[in-house]
Amino acid sequence: MARVDAVLTQIDKDLDNTLERLYALLRIESISTDPAYRQPCINAAQWLVDSLAEMGVEASVRDTAGLPMVVGHAGDSGPEILFYGHYDVQPVDPLELWHRPPFDPAIEDTADGKVIRARGAADDKGQLMTFVEACRAWKTVHGQLPARITFLFEGEEESGSPSLVPFLESHADELRASMALVCDTGMWNASTPAIGTMLRGMVGEEITITGPDKDLHSGMYGGPAQNPIRVLSRLLAGLHDDTGRITLPGFYDGVPELPAEIAEQWRGLDFKTEEFLGAVGLREAAGEQDYSALEQIWSRPTCEFNGINGGYTGDGFKTVLPSKASAKVSFRLVGTQDPEQIRKSLYQYIEQGLPGDCSVTFEPHGSSPGTSLPIEDPIFEQARQALSDEWGTPAAYTGCGGSIPVVGHFSDILGMDSLMIGFGLDDDQIHSPNEKYSLTSFHKGIRSWARVLDAISKDG
Amino acid sequence: MARVDAVLTQIDKDLDNTLERLYALLRIESISTDPAYRQPCINAAQWLVDSLAEMGVEASVRDTAGLPMVVGHAGDSGPEILFYGHYDVQPVDPLELWHRPPFDPAIEDTADGKVIRARGAADDKGQLMTFVEACRAWKTVHGQLPARITFLFEGEEESGSPSLVPFLESHADELRASMALVCDTGMWNASTPAIGTMLRGMVGEEITITGPDKDLHSGMYGGPAQNPIRVLSRLLAGLHDDTGRITLPGFYDGVPELPAEIAEQWRGLDFKTEEFLGAVGLREAAGEQDYSALEQIWSRPTCEFNGINGGYTGDGFKTVLPSKASAKVSFRLVGTQDPEQIRKSLYQYIEQGLPGDCSVTFEPHGSSPGTSLPIEDPIFEQARQALSDEWGTPAAYTGCGGSIPVVGHFSDILGMDSLMIGFGLDDDQIHSPNEKYSLTSFHKGIRSWARVLDAISKDG
Repeated sequence: MARVDAVLTQIDKDLDNTLERLYALLRIESISTDPAYRQPCINAAQWLVDSLAEMGVEASVRDTAGLPMVVGHAGDSGPEILFYGHYDVQPVDPLELWHRPPFDPAIEDTADGKVIRARGAADDKGQLMTFVEACRAWKTVHGQLPARITFLFEGEEESGSPSLVPFLESHADELRASMALVCDTGMWNASTPAIGTMLRGMVGEEITITGPDKDLHSGMYGGPAQNPIRVLSRLLAGLHDDTGRITLPGFYDGVPELPAEIAEQWRGLDFKTEEFLGAVGLREAAGEQDYSALEQIWSRPTCEFNGINGGYTGDGFKTVLPSKASAKVSFRLVGTQDPEQIRKSLYQYIEQGLPGDCSVTFEPHGSSPGTSLPIEDPIFEQARQALSDEWGTPAAYTGCGGSIPVVGHFSDILGMDSLMIGFGLDDDQIHSPNEKYSLTSFHKGIRSWARVLDAISKDG
Repeated sequence: MARVDAVLTQIDKDLDNTLERLYALLRIESISTDPAYRQPCINAAQWLVDSLAEMGVEASVRDTAGLPMVVGHAGDSGPEILFYGHYDVQPVDPLELWHRPPFDPAIEDTADGKVIRARGAADDKGQLMTFVEACRAWKTVHGQLPARITFLFEGEEESGSPSLVPFLESHADELRASMALVCDTGMWNASTPAIGTMLRGMVGEEITITGPDKDLHSGMYGGPAQNPIRVLSRLLAGLHDDTGRITLPGFYDGVPELPAEIAEQWRGLDFKTEEFLGAVGLREAAGEQDYSALEQIWSRPTCEFNGINGGYTGDGFKTVLPSKASAKVSFRLVGTQDPEQIRKSLYQYIEQGLPGDCSVTFEPHGSSPGTSLPIEDPIFEQARQALSDEWGTPAAYTGCGGSIPVVGHFSDILGMDSLMIGFGLDDDQIHSPNEKYSLTSFHKGIRSWARVLDAISKDG
C-alpha cells in the first residue's frame, strides 16, 4: 500500500473530529478590520498555535505592529515548503441577511450538497484547515511529516496586510523555503481542481485636471473657458483604440503570447462567456478584439476607469464650469510589463495631450507586476497529478484576473514561487452574508493536500 | 428748455432724499431663499406699494403661492411700457466676510469713487429704484408721466421665480405692454452704458450610462466587462471636433452670423481676452476656432459638461468596475436654435454610439431658446441715444452668455420684447459679501431712465 493511502483513510475516519476543530476556529470572531475585534483575532492566533502544538509543530504567536502572525515549524527531512493562510475574516454586516448566526457554524443541506455555513468557512479558515488537517493525519499515521514545513498564518489579510511585508523582511531567513503553498483560491468548478499559475499585476493612478482656478458660471464663461471634464473625457477616450487595444506607447512591451499548451487547456475548460457575463447583465466580451473573454481576464492587460468625478454631481442641475475633474485609472498587467514604465507612459500621454491652459496632478496608487509562475518546475506537474488523482478530473492551470499580493511578496522578499491551490467555489459568498464552504471542498481538500505532500516529497 | 432738462435738475437736487428712500428699502432683510425672512419680504413689497402710492401710482401687493408681487399703474398717455425689477435679495452668508452689516447701507469712499454698500444695493433694489426715482422726478416736475407705465416687482427672483409664470399667465391682460424695460443687468464698463440685445438659451440634460447590472471587481471582470465610464468618456469626447465645433447633426441650424454692425461695435468695445480669462487663471479662448472670446460667449452656442460622476470617487483607490456613470451636459443656444431638436439630436447620438451591452437613461433639465431682441425697432436706437447722451460715450449693444428667464417669459407669455438696461458693474459683488452699487451708477442711472422715458415717448 502506498504511503499516502493510510493517510487518506485516516482523514476519512477522523472527519467528524476534524469538523469539530474547524468549528472551534470558526466560532472565534476574528474580524480584523474592526478594532473592537482585536482580542478575538489574538484568540484565533493562539487557537492555531495550540492546535499546531497539539500535532507536535513548534508554533508560536509573533507580535507585529498590528495583529499577530502565527509561525510554526515541523518536519526534519524532505523539501522545504512554506504554507500560507490567514485566520482573519471579513465583517459580517449586513447581519440581517444571514439566515443563521455567522459565528455559529453548522452543516446545512443544499441543492448542491452539504455545506459548512459560517463567516470564514471558505475565506480562509476552512481552506487553511485543509492543509493543517492533512498534516495532522500524516503525523498520526507516519509519526512525522514528509517535508520540512513552515506554517505562516496572517491575521490582517482582510485589512490590506500592513504587517506582512515588514514581517517577511525581518524573518526572511526563518521563512524562506523552496516553494510556498498558498491556500486562498478556488477550484475551476465544483468537479475540477485548479492551480493558479498567472496573476495580473496592477498600476493605479489618480489623474486630476485643473482648468480655471475656480468654478465658473457656464453663462458667463461657457465657450472660451477650458472645461476640465471635456479635457479629461478626451484624454480617457484616447487610451483605447477602436479594437480595444491600449494606445500608450510601449504598453504591450513584455506581454507574452499564451503558451500553446495553456491555450489548449483553457479551451478545454468549457468557459461560457455568456454565462459569466450574463450573471452581471452583460452579453459580449468588451475587451481586446480577437481574444476570448477568458484570455481577456487571465492573460491580457487592461486599462480600466474605476472612478470619475468633476463639477456638480448632486440632484438637479447647476450650470457650473468646474475648475477640476479627476479620474481613478488602473491597469491590470501581465507577463513582464513594467508598472513604472507604464505609469511614466501614462504621464507623458496626459501631459502631451493637455491644452496649454490646463494643468495636471497625478497621485499614484500602488503598483505590482504580473506574476507568471514557472510551470516548467516539476513540482507543478507533481501537484497537478496529485489533484487530478483525488478529483478524478484533470486539474487546470488557471489564471487570475486580480492580484494575490502575498504571492508577489514571497517572490520579491523571499525569492520564492508559490503553488496556489484552493478549494473555494464561485458561489461561496466570501465577503458577503451566508458564506459557506462545500463539505466536499473541505474533505477532499484535506485529501488533496495529503496527495500533494506525498507527490512533491517523493524525491525529497 | 427741453422737457427732460427740468427732470434731470430735479433728480440732481433731490439726490440726498432719493438715497434715504433707497436706504429704507435696503434696510429690509428681504432674503427670499430663506423662509425665516418671509415677513421682511412682505414688508419690502408693502414698502414699494407705499412708495409708489406716494408718487400717485395706483399700486398694490398681489398675493401668489409664494412671495407677493407688486403691481402699479400710472400715466394715461404715451407708449405702454412694463417696468420689471425684483425686491428680494441673496442671502448674506458668510456674514463674517462683510466689513459692515449687510442691511445697514452707507456710502463708502473707494479707489473707484463712492459706492453704496449693502446687500441688494446693486441686485436689484438699487437698480429698480433708478427707474422709480426717475418717475418720481418726472411726476414732480411735470405732474404726470410721459408714458403709460406698469410697474412689476417680483420677490422670488433669487429663488428661481416659481410664481412668475403663473402670475404672468393669470394677469396677462393687465401686464401686457408694447415693450418691457428690465433693469437687472450691467454697464459694459464704468463709463460705457449698455443695452442687452442677445441672450443665450439653454438645454440641460443628465445622461446615465449603465453597463453591468452591479459594480464589479476589476480583477475578476476587467477586460470583458463594459466599463460605463469608458463609454461615457468616449461619447462626451465625440461631442466636439478638433476645432471646438459641436458635432451633433443639425446643431448649428438657426445659428445666425453676427450682423456686421454689431460685430463692428463689439470690436470697438476693446474687450481684453487675456484680462477676462486671466481673472480665472486662463489665457486662451478655448471655444470654436476663428471666433473671438466675446463672440464665443455672446453669439456662439456651446456644449458644456457641468458634472460627471461614476465609480469610486472617495479618498484612496478601489478597483471597482462601476455599473453606472453619468454626466450633466448643457448647451447654450443662440438665434433660433431649437432646444428640443438639439435634445433629440443628442439622444440619437448617444443611442447610436452605445455598445450593445450598455443602456442609457436621460433626464432633461429644462430648455429655453436664445433671445435676439429686435434692434431694428426704433425704440432701441432711441434708448441707445438717450444713454449715450447721459454718459457721453456711445452705448453698446451687448450680448449675455447666460439667460435672463424673465425676458423669455415676457416674450412667450405676453408677446413682448424687452429693453434690458442696467447700471451694474462687474465688481459689484452681487451674490457675494460686500455687495455695492456705484453712487454714479445710481445717480446717472436715474438720469438715464429720465432720458430714456423722454426719448421713447416723444412720438407718443
